Amino acid sequence: MIPDTRIAVIGLGLMGGSIARALHARGVRVLGYDRDGTQLDAAVREGIVHEPLDGELAGLATAEVVVLALPVDATIAILPCVASRLGDTRLVMDLGSTKRSIVAAAEAAGIGGRYVGAHPLTGSHRSGWGASRASLFEDARIFLCPTPSTTVGTLELAESLWRELRAGVEVLDAAEHDEQMAWRSHLPHLVSSALAVTLRDAGVRRSALGPGGRDMTRLAGGSPTMWHPIVRDNATAIAEALAAYEERIHAVRMALVAGDAAAARGFIESAATWFDGEPERVLTRTTL
Amino acid sequence: MIPDTRIAVIGLGLMGGSIARALHARGVRVLGYDRDGTQLDAAVREGIVHEPLDGELAGLATAEVVVLALPVDATIAILPCVASRLGDTRLVMDLGSTKRSIVAAAEAAGIGGRYVGAHPLTGSHRSGWGASRASLFEDARIFLCPTPSTTVGTLELAESLWRELRAGVEVLDAAEHDEQMAWRSHLPHLVSSALAVTLRDAGVRRSALGPGGRDMTRLAGGSPTMWHPIVRDNATAIAEALAAYEERIHAVRMALVAGDAAAARGFIESAATWFDGEPERVLTRTTL
Repeated sequence: MIPDTRIAVIGLGLMGGSIARALHARGVRVLGYDRDGTQLDAAVREGIVHEPLDGELAGLATAEVVVLALPVDATIAILPCVASRLGDTRLVMDLGSTKRSIVAAAEAAGIGGRYVGAHPLTGSHRSGWGASRASLFEDARIFLCPTPSTTVGTLELAESLWRELRAGVEVLDAAEHDEQMAWRSHLPHLVSSALAVTLRDAGVRRSALGPGGRDMTRLAGGSPTMWHPIVRDNATAIAEALAAYEERIHAVRMALVAGDAAAARGFIESAATWFDGEPERVLTRTTL
Repeated sequence: MIPDTRIAVIGLGLMGGSIARALHARGVRVLGYDRDGTQLDAAVREGIVHEPLDGELAGLATAEVVVLALPVDATIAILPCVASRLGDTRLVMDLGSTKRSIVAAAEAAGIGGRYVGAHPLTGSHRSGWGASRASLFEDARIFLCPTPSTTVGTLELAESLWRELRAGVEVLDAAEHDEQMAWRSHLPHLVSSALAVTLRDAGVRRSALGPGGRDMTRLAGGSPTMWHPIVRDNATAIAEALAAYEERIHAVRMALVAGDAAAARGFIESAATWFDGEPERVLTRTTL
């Protein structure tokens, strides 16, 4: 595809800005919109967005591909409008971190055939156009989740686009994706947020931490506008992951309170063994 | 001090190896010992350790400074032997992550006057001589904890040594140090370990995580030989920090289960606000 293709990017934050930059670098004609006029202006001024769209999104009719790079809730809210604006568009794709509700909304909006949900498993605690970079997706893992009616050609187009950006692609059922992300992405995020809030309550500032502690609280800095809708959308699966995690925290606390050195040592060793990628033991629970 | 000073380093892992390299680079005559002969051989072969010591540590008598870079429990165990080997040694210093028990053991061994406990708030999930590097302590924060009888000259010598290595020095009472580290260092470590064990149980490998999840599980890879003695030595304070953390995890889980969007959003926003270093709110708890 690429050179001279017309691709519209709605939302020019970290994700949308990065895909706009990566596409621009490959000769794509980038149509862009952000409800924050200063971000849109910056993208035009830098020459990354060639055609700014207005809030009515009328210009979408001329785009071959539409990328929605918005929070999960905003993506769902905008889908009917986007559907009504499409022309001969071959692919509509969002970049949200949950996929089940979104692909259902695309199907309900009548554009399931040319829709693919995408989730780049990458990101940053930083957000906005200023944090975007053309290389964000290189070597990143991208999950692609079809709707019930996504056509083979649509999925192939989405795959080729991400491969062009040098990302690794994995096709996954949307519900399975959300279930897995509860453990692989959303749990680590909330674990970091809970550590941040605990330290705040204890009067510890982030600057008082060492390099390890700063790593552990980096995700907590992620944009609440992005993260609250993710957590809300995937609450049931996340609550299950949190329950398993809470049990582990409780167990190690009890081991320390009881002076159970063997249990504490076993816990620390299990974690290090998993980290080292040694053969996994017989699992006591196999939630996934 | 530095050029031609004779400094003995006992334990040539990440911390001991790094201080040996940094001292060697400044013209210090490094005496070294590691009970693992291959690590000691490597340090001698690389020309970092100029005089290997044997297991009897008889050569310590000629050292002006002795640095113990061992796990917390091994430090306490070796102190009586070290005390019996000293000559005109002006400073003995350990690098353990807890300090209360160690400075008490130094005092009990009769070397409190020339002893200072040191804790570099830096490190790595990697361990051993192979992970050591001369720059480890540059811009790092080093806590120095005197014994009840540490002399002013001893503390000054320790401070000047760390400043020479370009570290920032903070003098702190040993009990206060351990209390603070329960929150600032040990809690983040166990939060990471618990995440690792939870993911293991869910069948998730570390390679399945994104960059954020990998950051969140890096500390879990720390050496159990180092970490279990730390956790054991500071169990009471760590259990208190874990209790506060467990409450937070429980509260966010309950918010998700109850569909309490305002509580979930407030939690995520609080974490991000702390991260951004905005003015802190009135604290509901002030454990520190």
